[in-house]
Amino acid sequence: MNARTTSFSAQPPRRPSLPERRISRRLSALSSAEHGQNGAPTGTTEDELTEEIEKIKRYEDFTTIDWVQDAAREQLRRRARRKENAGFFERDGHLGWRRKLRDSYDAGQAWIVVTLVGAAIGLNAAFLNIVTEWLSDVKLGYCTTAFYLNEDFCCWGEDTCEDWHRWTPLWPVNYFLYFVFSIIFALTSASLVKAYAPYAAGSGISEIKCIIAGFVMKGFLGFWTLLIKSICLPLAIASGLSVGKEGPSVHYAVCTGNVISRFFDKYKRNAAKTREILSACAAAGVAVAFGSPIGGVLFSLEEMSSYFPLKTMWRSYFCALVATAVLAAMNPFRTGQLVMFEVRYDRSWHFFEIIFFIFIGVFGGLYGAFVMKWNLRAMAFRKKYLSQYAILEATLLAGGTAILCYPNMFLRIDMTEAMEKLFLECEGGHDYDGLCEAKNRWSMVLSLLFATIMRTFLVIISYGCKVPAGIFVPSMAVGAYFGRMVGILVQALHESFPHAKFFAACEPDVPCITPGTYAFLGAAAALSGIMHITVSVVVIMFELTGALTYILPTMIVVGVTKAVSERFGKGGIADRMIWFNGFPFLDNKEEHTFGVPVSQVMTSEVTSLPSTGLNLRSLESLMSQNKYQGFPIVENFTTKALIGYIGRTELQYAINRAKKEGFISPNAKCFFTQPDSTAVQTPSTAAPPVTFDAIESATGQQSVDFSRFIDPTPLAVHPRLPLETVMELFKKMGPRVILVDYRGRLAGLVTVKDCLKFQFKVEAHETTRDDSMLDERQERLWGIMNRVADWIADNVNGLSGGRIKLGGSGRSPGILEAHTADPRDHLSPIPASHHAILDGTEDEDNGVELQNR
Amino acid sequence: MNARTTSFSAQPPRRPSLPERRISRRLSALSSAEHGQNGAPTGTTEDELTEEIEKIKRYEDFTTIDWVQDAAREQLRRRARRKENAGFFERDGHLGWRRKLRDSYDAGQAWIVVTLVGAAIGLNAAFLNIVTEWLSDVKLGYCTTAFYLNEDFCCWGEDTCEDWHRWTPLWPVNYFLYFVFSIIFALTSASLVKAYAPYAAGSGISEIKCIIAGFVMKGFLGFWTLLIKSICLPLAIASGLSVGKEGPSVHYAVCTGNVISRFFDKYKRNAAKTREILSACAAAGVAVAFGSPIGGVLFSLEEMSSYFPLKTMWRSYFCALVATAVLAAMNPFRTGQLVMFEVRYDRSWHFFEIIFFIFIGVFGGLYGAFVMKWNLRAMAFRKKYLSQYAILEATLLAGGTAILCYPNMFLRIDMTEAMEKLFLECEGGHDYDGLCEAKNRWSMVLSLLFATIMRTFLVIISYGCKVPAGIFVPSMAVGAYFGRMVGILVQALHESFPHAKFFAACEPDVPCITPGTYAFLGAAAALSGIMHITVSVVVIMFELTGALTYILPTMIVVGVTKAVSERFGKGGIADRMIWFNGFPFLDNKEEHTFGVPVSQVMTSEVTSLPSTGLNLRSLESLMSQNKYQGFPIVENFTTKALIGYIGRTELQYAINRAKKEGFISPNAKCFFTQPDSTAVQTPSTAAPPVTFDAIESATGQQSVDFSRFIDPTPLAVHPRLPLETVMELFKKMGPRVILVDYRGRLAGLVTVKDCLKFQFKVEAHETTRDDSMLDERQERLWGIMNRVADWIADNVNGLSGGRIKLGGSGRSPGILEAHTADPRDHLSPIPASHHAILDGTEDEDNGVELQNR
Repeated sequence: MNARTTSFSAQPPRRPSLPERRISRRLSALSSAEHGQNGAPTGTTEDELTEEIEKIKRYEDFTTIDWVQDAAREQLRRRARRKENAGFFERDGHLGWRRKLRDSYDAGQAWIVVTLVGAAIGLNAAFLNIVTEWLSDVKLGYCTTAFYLNEDFCCWGEDTCEDWHRWTPLWPVNYFLYFVFSIIFALTSASLVKAYAPYAAGSGISEIKCIIAGFVMKGFLGFWTLLIKSICLPLAIASGLSVGKEGPSVHYAVCTGNVISRFFDKYKRNAAKTREILSACAAAGVAVAFGSPIGGVLFSLEEMSSYFPLKTMWRSYFCALVATAVLAAMNPFRTGQLVMFEVRYDRSWHFFEIIFFIFIGVFGGLYGAFVMKWNLRAMAFRKKYLSQYAILEATLLAGGTAILCYPNMFLRIDMTEAMEKLFLECEGGHDYDGLCEAKNRWSMVLSLLFATIMRTFLVIISYGCKVPAGIFVPSMAVGAYFGRMVGILVQALHESFPHAKFFAACEPDVPCITPGTYAFLGAAAALSGIMHITVSVVVIMFELTGALTYILPTMIVVGVTKAVSERFGKGGIADRMIWFNGFPFLDNKEEHTFGVPVSQVMTSEVTSLPSTGLNLRSLESLMSQNKYQGFPIVENFTTKALIGYIGRTELQYAINRAKKEGFISPNAKCFFTQPDSTAVQTPSTAAPPVTFDAIESATGQQSVDFSRFIDPTPLAVHPRLPLETVMELFKKMGPRVILVDYRGRLAGLVTVKDCLKFQFKVEAHETTRDDSMLDERQERLWGIMNRVADWIADNVNGLSGGRIKLGGSGRSPGILEAHTADPRDHLSPIPASHHAILDGTEDEDNGVELQNR
Repeated sequence: MNARTTSFSAQPPRRPSLPERRISRRLSALSSAEHGQNGAPTGTTEDELTEEIEKIKRYEDFTTIDWVQDAAREQLRRRARRKENAGFFERDGHLGWRRKLRDSYDAGQAWIVVTLVGAAIGLNAAFLNIVTEWLSDVKLGYCTTAFYLNEDFCCWGEDTCEDWHRWTPLWPVNYFLYFVFSIIFALTSASLVKAYAPYAAGSGISEIKCIIAGFVMKGFLGFWTLLIKSICLPLAIASGLSVGKEGPSVHYAVCTGNVISRFFDKYKRNAAKTREILSACAAAGVAVAFGSPIGGVLFSLEEMSSYFPLKTMWRSYFCALVATAVLAAMNPFRTGQLVMFEVRYDRSWHFFEIIFFIFIGVFGGLYGAFVMKWNLRAMAFRKKYLSQYAILEATLLAGGTAILCYPNMFLRIDMTEAMEKLFLECEGGHDYDGLCEAKNRWSMVLSLLFATIMRTFLVIISYGCKVPAGIFVPSMAVGAYFGRMVGILVQALHESFPHAKFFAACEPDVPCITPGTYAFLGAAAALSGIMHITVSVVVIMFELTGALTYILPTMIVVGVTKAVSERFGKGGIADRMIWFNGFPFLDNKEEHTFGVPVSQVMTSEVTSLPSTGLNLRSLESLMSQNKYQGFPIVENFTTKALIGYIGRTELQYAINRAKKEGFISPNAKCFFTQPDSTAVQTPSTAAPPVTFDAIESATGQQSVDFSRFIDPTPLAVHPRLPLETVMELFKKMGPRVILVDYRGRLAGLVTVKDCLKFQFKVEAHETTRDDSMLDERQERLWGIMNRVADWIADNVNGLSGGRIKLGGSGRSPGILEAHTADPRDHLSPIPASHHAILDGTEDEDNGVELQNR
């Protein structure tokens, strides 16, 4: 088949006039294979239109991207460029090299952006690491030679450190100072977040997942978020809150990518391409947080991206590489290592240990399920009662954490540091406070058990408070506490029965059990349990420690964790948060069997536009009456023959543009198809003006042509197509809307939200939960908290003689009622947060409460 | 919206009668949310039909799977099962637990299969490792204590080995024996392959890629292939041919998966599910070949699978884990390690070394491009002239390799062993034949250079010969030779200018450059260059050696290699082979800008069937006249209103079934729609029998109802939809065919092959190559080879006095002409191998020459 043969076109394209065609053919001689519909001149104009619309779309908040349209536009752009190039080349051979240069710049933009972004992320990470270490140490003491040095750098190269002093020799005063510093750090962090960038709070992973999948959230990846997140993250971590830096690392990395890529043409226009960069940034974020470049790539693949083609993987690889290399070059820890801890285990493991590994894996799964369940409840409580007290909450949490944690040797120090100590082998002189000594064994076990329980509790209440907060490192720390405890117990068992058959694989007179490896495996299990990721965890743990011989045990542990945690529901904490917040996100991991055709889910009363005959006034009133994101175009309301689809933005833009270009009568007829294709003659003019150039020359125009703004080939499916297939189409192709047509007639319209609504309904039907008791308990808790707060306020007030008055102003007694007034929260089997999606029509996304996060 | 509300159904579903409906509603009380169209009784029958058809389809050779239909069928089955369960549960509460047991067995089948398969792969790998080692050593000597022990086991635990003897003390005799053993091994291997399982030849990776993407190749994954591949692989490797075991490992692993999964119901029926298992097996294959479980998973993700959802990743993870654990438990190397070599580098790298790393990366890219180009030419030559001399070719190659390689110390030993030696640091007493001694430096460099060139040449001519043959390890070996050479040169440079500013980062009096790491990086570069994979290479190298500190250099090298090799065209050698062999495979990696609507590519003259009015005789003659895989159903030829699609298999099955069930008049009218839905009355009977049960009771039936066999909701697109979007649909949704309809009327039909044809045409247009000169050169080469063969045959004949006659029988002088008779091979800009696809109609897949591979 010759590519030049006339295309089948029932709706024939606008053909350029004959001489025009001849030129265009000459121009496009080199690219004859892709003979398109539009001649070069109109192509350029079309391009400009497209770009202007794209720019508008970029800033529409709380909408989703139409990937299919986006890809089609990109194709159009490329074709236009190629054609243009071919033209240039023919007209002036000497211009060839400039063109080529521009072309390779265009092709290389991606690499330039990825390199810049990677370098920026690496620098930022190095800075954050240094600041965090310093702030953490400042809580305990100071350097006499230079106040800005942390303990390690202060004592650099010295065996006994003379220059580093604790604040005082008295431990109660130290305790108090520790507490005060914690409070100050948390207060600063929370205040900055609240004042400048509310989006900088939390981990950000769930939101970024949605954004990468195509959701638009204005400002979430903006410069202010980047700045505030970068400043507040060290403060939040140094405050001692049970939060980690990995989620926020991903967030600031993605912000960096977004901010930098905006300066480049290619990414200003194209949402899909920007998403590729964002995926790469997410990889770089994890890479620098853990010093694990490959782990970062896999995390981006496994957790962040709904669609991860190899091209994106390669970009992610490169971005993670650059970021890690820059971080390595900066060498923030002065150890030549990327990670804060590197462990080498000299001994290998024994097959009999697998039974304990399985036990640790089970713990990981249970930990994940438990924390997710209670953290979500804590989140619900926070959302309902505490949203006005974000700063107070964070400060109190930091204070409480400091008071509770200081006495325990494992909780007092930084979580990363704690892990480093717990991972170590006992041999080779690394002994932390007698951790390895046999006589301390039982006190260590108790201490570790306490640390496990306390840290779990703190993670539950801390994750989600309004400071930058990740959950990776706290979870790993919990796992490490637990694992080390198990390891010590197993070691004790072995030493009690050294000749038991079970331990036959152990060589005599040589240490057999390495408790450090149990801690290591525990960390892997807990991380996998909370995030529901597998391969990335193995690689991250591996890159963290280089424990090559332990790859099989790690895989076993993570496998068991995965199996256990799947018993308790699908999706890690990021997915639960998405569900909790009601974002329109179709999860790739879930598989459903609904057994219904799409016709049961679609909206059948669609507001559609007739291709001819509608006047401008009615069109505008139609648009103001509803907020649908777009309208199908039908031939007329009788036949309902589907002609195309027009997005709201495009339509609005077209109307505005038409108005700007000349006076248009409110009675002007709107055409959505080429008049020649449907053989309809406009009543006013014999030869209707079909382009804006023609409109420009006339005033009081009686007809407007919108045909170039419509999408003539929207995805359309049969009404009896199974819903599952339609959902696959949404997931894999990513259109904003799928039309349903039966034999060419419009039958309905279906969006992702229609699918999600249906899914929630089915799920709610399957698992009706008793939310009312929960609500009651939450209220009771809130009541207690109020009373305690009042009591404290009164006492402080009394003690200080009225000079100190604690925040009584914001707390009105009416809050309780105001927040529980919505009866839906109690009656519906669907979580309250879903009402935003379920009740909203397609446009009411703003109902999702994100502004105050 | 209530899920029970009546669905929009312009073509209303067959409704069960009222009492039937009442029962079915009662039965399905528990699953009311998924109220489907079919009552339980018909559902079961439908299921049986579906399953029978599935079973037939499983054995149709050279076809592709329709993923969309496959998924839809699976949904249907699940729904039916759920409904059935609900019924059982209601009828007999006591049966509940049995049902539950069966259910969990059903759900757990995947895990059972994956575990079994993993264990089988692990066992097989252990067996192969042991046999390969023994065979390789037998070429050099024998164990006096027990002939079946290899050198390592023979000398186990002894410092100086007394029991292991070389065959003779004279090196020329040893050389000769080495040569003889090589020839015997290769001859055995090639003969077995040719006699029992031609598909066992080669690497198999390209074919498996296509199979996983949905192509059906009967016997490629069968038991015989598995057996022969397992037996011949050690022989081929031991013969000293420049082939590796990784590709074949993947192949036998996937065979194992296919053979074992066939015993399970779930996989007998469902092609998509089987593909998931196959992906997992591919991961396990690489995992056991390299002892790199995570690397295996990533390889499967990056290279093997066109679609890799997280579920498959998790299966792959598990399968690789089981396989590796079994291999570790078998402990074939008696070292407690999974891999044949584990290296630890004590020294870290310096930033100035990056410049040399980049150089190595460039080499990797060039190596890949060079080998691919020439290997494809060798393949073309082999296909054209040598296809009848497969055994002779392999034997001669093995003999030639043995003669050429024995004199060089690096080529003589097994490639894995060579790598192990080259990777090592010089410190710590590991010195292989003075490799580390400064005085040998220049002779070593020359020796390594020769090894690099010779091995590259051997890889080019050996990969693709008719024994099990991979390209991973040979490529890595080439890289290691080259890398070590560079390393030695850099070391020499440093020692010559120890105080140069460039080497300022080196500490004085301590070895600064580690040539072993250069060898390591070279291996990574060459592997990445030939396969065009990145992340997997880094992880594999990492898992092979545990060189944690070298992760950044590895990433840099692989990154450079990737960048360089992309200059020379897209796709690794597996992709090129797919292209070369003309498999219908849409590559995910490629992005095209065609800028044409689908209407330019589609077949517009489609053989469609009218929904009513066609009689059986014409239907059968239509089916015998062409070999289309399916037919669209239209209302009638005038309106061409699209009703559905029926596959050839389904239609044939339906006809056979109808005939079996009762005598059918050849003039019987065929109905493809429910008569009530289109208001057409059959002329013969007032109430037409619509089910086979009704047909059964009558003879000489005047009408046949095929409506239950049609797919009423085939994917259909607008003729003006861009071709790129249609290709995305094919890639991501995986239908066998996409119909093109314009306003409900059938306008055409498009298949993957139509897209590929168009793509090849465009590409051929863009890069017209001069194939005729190549052909001429090939002919000349063939002439020379013939003359040499004749000369040898004559001489041997003469020397042996006519007693030995070398293969003159198969070589007729006419071969040359016979093979070059097809004028298309010279004239067309498209490679000859593509004619199969380009000329063939949809059914002529058999034109692809696979039988003799």
